[in-house]
Amino acid sequence: MSALRLFTGQIQVSSRTGVDITDITGQIQVSSRTGVDITDITGQLQDLVRKSDIVSGVLHATCTGSTGSLTCIEYEPGVIADLTRAVNELALPDREYEHEKAWHDGNGHSHVQAALLGPSVSIQIRSRKCVLGTWQQVVAINHDVKPRTRKIEISILGI
Amino acid sequence: MSALRLFTGQIQVSSRTGVDITDITGQIQVSSRTGVDITDITGQLQDLVRKSDIVSGVLHATCTGSTGSLTCIEYEPGVIADLTRAVNELALPDREYEHEKAWHDGNGHSHVQAALLGPSVSIQIRSRKCVLGTWQQVVAINHDVKPRTRKIEISILGI
Amino acid sequence: MSALRLFTGQIQVSSRTGVDITDITGQIQVSSRTGVDITDITGQLQDLVRKSDIVSGVLHATCTGSTGSLTCIEYEPGVIADLTRAVNELALPDREYEHEKAWHDGNGHSHVQAALLGPSVSIQIRSRKCVLGTWQQVVAINHDVKPRTRKIEISILGI
Repeated sequence: MSALRLFTGQIQVSSRTGVDITDITGQIQVSSRTGVDITDITGQLQDLVRKSDIVSGVLHATCTGSTGSLTCIEYEPGVIADLTRAVNELALPDREYEHEKAWHDGNGHSHVQAALLGPSVSIQIRSRKCVLGTWQQVVAINHDVKPRTRKIEISILGI
Repeated sequence: MSALRLFTGQIQVSSRTGVDITDITGQIQVSSRTGVDITDITGQLQDLVRKSDIVSGVLHATCTGSTGSLTCIEYEPGVIADLTRAVNELALPDREYEHEKAWHDGNGHSHVQAALLGPSVSIQIRSRKCVLGTWQQVVAINHDVKPRTRKIEISILGI
Repeated sequence: MSALRLFTGQIQVSSRTGVDITDITGQIQVSSRTGVDITDITGQLQDLVRKSDIVSGVLHATCTGSTGSLTCIEYEPGVIADLTRAVNELALPDREYEHEKAWHDGNGHSHVQAALLGPSVSIQIRSRKCVLGTWQQVVAINHDVKPRTRKIEISILGI
């Protein structure tokens, strides 16, 4: 935690100019169960990238809907259970929420959870694939109190 | 939470290559009250998109300033109150902070809150509009202990 | 927290069309200590931007690896200590985690912490520099229980 430290990283740069940039738009629809429900969407993103024919660039994904979110995890049953518990502790389902006093839909905690996790992630594309760690997957989370078809809007920009 | 599950999503892809990509830069300035203060900036973002003449692409927004953050919520008084409470529980204002021992500006919790929420969101643009859920708005949050003019830098890339 | 409020922000737009967009890819490798370890990578990002020769656009950074994350803070010892404490309270290291029952690698909390903070940030570029607040830096966080070389994939798109 000292302010003085040696930065031992490396930087690599490769650049390309004056080539056509391709813009790809896509949408993923995920049939989610009652929240907290965490779905691995990495395969679907890799499919989109493969179909896009983009070699290098960025994939942007955004969950449209205020009770859904996106992040990355190692998608295995242990982490899924641990993250579910942590998300439910960030905003406990059985507490009082102001949202419910007006709307009575029982999802006050869902809104808070989704806002804290955030709606969007950006993943880099190299050699026609999303660059992720070996044990890293992109996940869509449904925080709502009923099954929802979560819509994930995707844009891929690259060359 | 089982690792085995059927993915029932759909994928749609549309692509365009070899057209000019437009790069738009903009800035929003938000006069925020003492934090936690949550402002809906969706209208301002939609204005920027409309003025940009971009039909399809991505809007990137970043809060410059380490005591501000961006996320999405349903912007109604209940959720605003619930998120305010949750954010203040993530980093309690009336606790001891190391930051304050050196700087004495009373905003140690503001820095922690903003770091946990994150500075940036990416929203997709389709048919000249930001694609959001029906009940979903983009918000800028001032976590600081005094009113601040929060500056949000915007880039729009698309066609 | 009232729903009624005056929005006093300003919007500025500048646009450029029909110029070549440049796509830059880079990678930063950060030798991180045992987590929670927070490294300032702003200098490395500014270096990449300078080398890229891009005047205006967006820099996207993603931490590849499910026990690392990216965010922004004021990089000074007080905030570093405060954020470290807060992150360790979000997912306590000495609690039981389902992940560890199968994998016994002691990093169940690291996975949860990284998922809650998120893998990616987007920073705007203006006048050949990342636009950040005066006291705002981009940081890579290693949450793992051993030193890790964290890899940050970077894409810069702009003109």
